[in-house]
Amino acid sequence: MTIHQDHETQTESSGERSVDAQLRRRALEVIPGGMYGHLNMAAMPADYPQYFESARGARVTDVDGREFVDLMCSWGPVILGHQRREVDEAFNRQMSLGDCLNGPSARMVELAERLVGAVSHAQWAMFEKNGTDATTLCVTIARAATGRSKVLVATGAYHGAAPWCTPVKSGVTLEDRANLAYYTYNDLDSVRAVLSEDVAAIMVSPFRHDAGFDQELVDPLFAQGLRDICDETGSALILDDVRCGFRLNFGSSWEPIGVQPDLSAWSKAIANGYPLAAVLGNDRFRAAAQSLFTTGSFWFASAAMAASLATLDVLEREDCVAHMVRMGDALRQGIEAQSLRHGIEVRQSGPSQMPFMSFVGDVDSKMAAQFASSALRHGLYLHPRHNWFVSAAFSDADLDLALSATDAAFSELRTTFV
Amino acid sequence: MTIHQDHETQTESSGERSVDAQLRRRALEVIPGGMYGHLNMAAMPADYPQYFESARGARVTDVDGREFVDLMCSWGPVILGHQRREVDEAFNRQMSLGDCLNGPSARMVELAERLVGAVSHAQWAMFEKNGTDATTLCVTIARAATGRSKVLVATGAYHGAAPWCTPVKSGVTLEDRANLAYYTYNDLDSVRAVLSEDVAAIMVSPFRHDAGFDQELVDPLFAQGLRDICDETGSALILDDVRCGFRLNFGSSWEPIGVQPDLSAWSKAIANGYPLAAVLGNDRFRAAAQSLFTTGSFWFASAAMAASLATLDVLEREDCVAHMVRMGDALRQGIEAQSLRHGIEVRQSGPSQMPFMSFVGDVDSKMAAQFASSALRHGLYLHPRHNWFVSAAFSDADLDLALSATDAAFSELRTTFV
Repeated sequence: MTIHQDHETQTESSGERSVDAQLRRRALEVIPGGMYGHLNMAAMPADYPQYFESARGARVTDVDGREFVDLMCSWGPVILGHQRREVDEAFNRQMSLGDCLNGPSARMVELAERLVGAVSHAQWAMFEKNGTDATTLCVTIARAATGRSKVLVATGAYHGAAPWCTPVKSGVTLEDRANLAYYTYNDLDSVRAVLSEDVAAIMVSPFRHDAGFDQELVDPLFAQGLRDICDETGSALILDDVRCGFRLNFGSSWEPIGVQPDLSAWSKAIANGYPLAAVLGNDRFRAAAQSLFTTGSFWFASAAMAASLATLDVLEREDCVAHMVRMGDALRQGIEAQSLRHGIEVRQSGPSQMPFMSFVGDVDSKMAAQFASSALRHGLYLHPRHNWFVSAAFSDADLDLALSATDAAFSELRTTFV
Repeated sequence: MTIHQDHETQTESSGERSVDAQLRRRALEVIPGGMYGHLNMAAMPADYPQYFESARGARVTDVDGREFVDLMCSWGPVILGHQRREVDEAFNRQMSLGDCLNGPSARMVELAERLVGAVSHAQWAMFEKNGTDATTLCVTIARAATGRSKVLVATGAYHGAAPWCTPVKSGVTLEDRANLAYYTYNDLDSVRAVLSEDVAAIMVSPFRHDAGFDQELVDPLFAQGLRDICDETGSALILDDVRCGFRLNFGSSWEPIGVQPDLSAWSKAIANGYPLAAVLGNDRFRAAAQSLFTTGSFWFASAAMAASLATLDVLEREDCVAHMVRMGDALRQGIEAQSLRHGIEVRQSGPSQMPFMSFVGDVDSKMAAQFASSALRHGLYLHPRHNWFVSAAFSDADLDLALSATDAAFSELRTTFV
């Protein structure tokens, strides 16, 4: 395999002399710890690049010129593939007029109309920049509407990186978390156990996608049970669709199971990588949404909204969800066959277009780490402990290369662990 | 005046038939209240457009084709003028490689190095997307470093729109504000009065720029006093340079008075309108910054960072602060002369490149509203109750047009109020 040999050669000649290593050394001087957040590659397997040079379609290239088939999609934002023509043209067309003006352009109204048309529970839209902005705004709107304080979230769920929700509690005060209560995903009894008259909202992800664990699809009865509880208690049902939005369904992720949230948080894929977030809500929460002062320096900028309009058009016209499912299914089936052939037992979980794989008995994730490291050397970029993302640009050729990389990775894993 | 007549004609033919009115009507259906945040024009004088079409240099054009000389600069982000060639070229060059990748590109390290080089108190940098992200991160770092909770802020100061700081308390819980205490800007005694052993940080703006009030420059003794208090107590001094950064000085806004914060928050102008925020800090707070999990879907995107590098280059090379001061001074002197000539007494306050004007005796802001409305009809976009922003693209021709509009506005004001 040419790609295999190229990568081996580059890896051997890397270390201190690689561009990535040089950048990491420079970064240590001017960035705390050299990097932060989910992009910190310090705990990743050997050879994972920290810095990237470019991307196109379903391929990414790191600063040392290694090209990979991409199963991370920038951790979710890239849904149509990098540099998708229609999206970039819409972005550039708007840029030639103006982006960050003294107010929004018509693109804002058009996009709000488009989202309200596409998402069945939505009767209005608001825009922001980060997924965390959107989850935080949902919670604030629910509190304003109900006059209550508490928010129920699933233990271990990720809803953003603000003090009220970040998974690492450094710098977080007791008061930041004072109004949270925790339930267990897919367990209605655990929800009922923490209900009180002061519950403003129940926040929930479309499926359980906590990093480092096998994924768990939502039980439709659980989803409907949350809807019923919110109807009975007057709390808001908030669907955190930041990670899943438009990947599971063209529309809200729970439309296929017939459960409508009151408020939903969106970001990541809605503009194919251009920075944008949105909150969608129904009319019960319109007045509360209107009562807030929520803003920022850039949320109203037009070019990302133009990109979002184009992204939604392509997603709908080409039925991209179906393509992503098809490619995700094929990837999953290929991995399953390889797993059987190599005699290495794996668990594959979650929707096939947002797949997660773990190794049976791999308590310390060492097998996952070695597998990922091998796959990387063979030209496939995936994450050992976080769900992957299949983009609409993922082609048969990408699939073939991905599966040849996973096959080689299984092979190498067997020499170490079996 | 051609511009005057054009605008009059368009205004007469507007109302329901204007594009702006049509967009507002559509927006009412799909956006709570039709608009939100500081961009909501509902409370602005008649004829202020809600929607914009395009911009170039120091001119903005609304969706009905009215062109204005711009004194708002998108509320701060646009510092070099719209569509500044060097910035857009850097942005586009990066876009042709990739923007939102599986990690940052070398631009992130280059920009961190550039900011650490440009801002004297900075030994490291972190990036985000909103000004609120940056002020929140500063507070969280200060808490992580000190193990304390309380943050002192000036009464009436704006530090963002998250629940802990938004000026409108709808949906805000008591716990969101439990760790804030308030002092009076430029009053050290008021700071000492709220000191306690649990103070993690004192947050302060470079000058007092609360909306709706005359601006107040910082007393250097106050700034130094805050520095001394923080040194004595171990609290972090946080300078909120989101609005002023690179407008008052190429570097931290308090460098000219010799006072160094520990942490500073930046956004708005650092990438000439492209969405980016930053936190800069010194080594005392590096480990705490490293201990947090702070992240988002887009903060690491490369194109806005490339734009920021180009923005900083132009700002430094062309000494844009000096130009903005020069133009701001000329604008202020022109307005002062007009005020005397028309016999309408005004107060002008704040740095001249971020000027604010109010009318003596104008308790209900009616004079400010009519003045702004007149200026708008005469081709000048300014805000009646918020500081203005002079950009580096503001030319002698823009100044002439601005002053002819303010002259006409004074003239019209006299017919109503004098």
